[in-house]
Amino acid sequence: MQIERPYLLFLGDVHDDLAAKTGYGIVDWRRDWCVGQMRLPGCKADAKLPDMGIEEARAAGAKTLVIGVVNPGGVLPDRWVETIVTAIESGMDVASGLHMKLGAVPEIAEAAKAHGRKLSDVRHSNERFATGKGTRRPGRRLLTVGTDCSVGKKYTSLALEKGMQERGLKADFRATGQTGVFISGRGVAVDAVVADFISGAAEWLSPANEPDHWDVIEGQGSLFHPSFAGVTLGLLHGAQPDAFVVCHEPTRRKMRNVEHPIPDIADVIDLTVRCGQLTNPDIRCVGIAINTAALDEAAARRTIEETSTRYGLPASDPVRFGVQPIVNRLIEEFPG
Amino acid sequence: MQIERPYLLFLGDVHDDLAAKTGYGIVDWRRDWCVGQMRLPGCKADAKLPDMGIEEARAAGAKTLVIGVVNPGGVLPDRWVETIVTAIESGMDVASGLHMKLGAVPEIAEAAKAHGRKLSDVRHSNERFATGKGTRRPGRRLLTVGTDCSVGKKYTSLALEKGMQERGLKADFRATGQTGVFISGRGVAVDAVVADFISGAAEWLSPANEPDHWDVIEGQGSLFHPSFAGVTLGLLHGAQPDAFVVCHEPTRRKMRNVEHPIPDIADVIDLTVRCGQLTNPDIRCVGIAINTAALDEAAARRTIEETSTRYGLPASDPVRFGVQPIVNRLIEEFPG
Repeated sequence: MQIERPYLLFLGDVHDDLAAKTGYGIVDWRRDWCVGQMRLPGCKADAKLPDMGIEEARAAGAKTLVIGVVNPGGVLPDRWVETIVTAIESGMDVASGLHMKLGAVPEIAEAAKAHGRKLSDVRHSNERFATGKGTRRPGRRLLTVGTDCSVGKKYTSLALEKGMQERGLKADFRATGQTGVFISGRGVAVDAVVADFISGAAEWLSPANEPDHWDVIEGQGSLFHPSFAGVTLGLLHGAQPDAFVVCHEPTRRKMRNVEHPIPDIADVIDLTVRCGQLTNPDIRCVGIAINTAALDEAAARRTIEETSTRYGLPASDPVRFGVQPIVNRLIEEFPG
Repeated sequence: MQIERPYLLFLGDVHDDLAAKTGYGIVDWRRDWCVGQMRLPGCKADAKLPDMGIEEARAAGAKTLVIGVVNPGGVLPDRWVETIVTAIESGMDVASGLHMKLGAVPEIAEAAKAHGRKLSDVRHSNERFATGKGTRRPGRRLLTVGTDCSVGKKYTSLALEKGMQERGLKADFRATGQTGVFISGRGVAVDAVVADFISGAAEWLSPANEPDHWDVIEGQGSLFHPSFAGVTLGLLHGAQPDAFVVCHEPTRRKMRNVEHPIPDIADVIDLTVRCGQLTNPDIRCVGIAINTAALDEAAARRTIEETSTRYGLPASDPVRFGVQPIVNRLIEEFPG
């Protein structure tokens, strides 16, 4: 899936920031790709971009209207259709992170056909994948894994990409979720792939590359999450990472949306190594990313230090304190 | 999904028996439903049914052409299309276990429409699943797991269902693959479910039941297969089995379609227990099912005895020698 840039970010008329977190993620990491935001009356979200309409955005060069919001039920409300059709008529593609496909709305499908524009539903994959083969391929790979879902794997991956590039490494973020696809302009929502092709999709996502090039692959779910561990394992096997970083949210007590406790970081490392060795015998953990958003700075620093000592690995909050300790370890472990 | 009987089994031009395992499975468990088989030039598979063409099969009463073969990647080769269209034109429905939908081939879709015939893709489910919750539910569950794909998990499950019923246990086979769905008329092809819903589909497949009722759940893939382990793990978490049986083919040296070696049975038991404990802390192995089709009887008996001794578990070839030792252990471990 390839999304043309730059974007006009469509925030609709959503009532809170949470509903716009896809849009905010795009702005956090790819501000330069966004010419502006478009909001309908009643919108309470604000991505801090210039407000503009379709015509103005086209004049500024926008090539894709990005639906950067979620809506209860994942449905596309009728009141957004007019804007989307206008964007298509003006010559823009449309990309959406909603569950409901853009093409399921007849007016949108017809407009896209009539004007030869592309509709991209990043939660749905039209790409045909092969089954994973598990064969080693050149290039280096780092995968973020989690003690739970929604603990910061995407942000950690993006911060690592940036930090690694700053240290002169060749590094590319590889998106495996809908927001990540908007941020990288390419990728696959692996949780939307047919189950037989999870590892195959991961192999497609991260093809052979130069020996010193790093793919930084966004992880999904957790090997310990009873809803999504299958996705996590298929992604691990297909990614065949040389290195992984464990992402953790230290104040959480139960796994997201279920009653299961959060696993110990040591168990996550151990099971990831054990399963990951199937496709990369040299897999190793290079650090722990701790999401300290719920802690004050003193508690955050203390938690990071204790975690680092306890597991004998570099630890940091990638967003709050940067990724330097983890990138240092990566360079040590994989010189040249 | 209702598939009209009797069947004409289509074996295409596949080059080995493994590729025809869907057809063989239907014949082994539902011989009476099949009027014959149809093979194209070069076909190396043989389901031991009368060979016949479309006209002859129609005359014999065949109502559905069943695509009883699998193909790497699940694609329907162009050279099969003519036969399928001819069958439709003669008045037959078509049912397929391939990943690729029959209706995705325009000639097939048009013929079905023109002649009012039904196309059934058993790998595709229209059922909407929830994500797995991992919550314990009443009833007992046995899952077959494998050292590889295609080692006899479905046959073992069907033989266990029969053997358990003969011993007075309440037992029902639960199909998780296309052949099983053809055989049982119910089930879900879990490898065709969207990745996020693998464990949810397994929970749906095996709902709450009486405390002494056993679901005998057909396993898929292997935790050690780099193409399909994600499916295997999601199924394990959703099935939350009390007991599992390891299925093994002792003469195989590499895993199916990849270069990876077959794992040791002890590693399969250990990793299955470790991962399975997430949703059922009491999970345990109750036996080993050995597919001895490639061995003479003396070698088969010796292999079974050695395996049983080595791992301290009852072992048998369920098809050749029955499931009694394994059912005995099950009754011992789960009395009342």
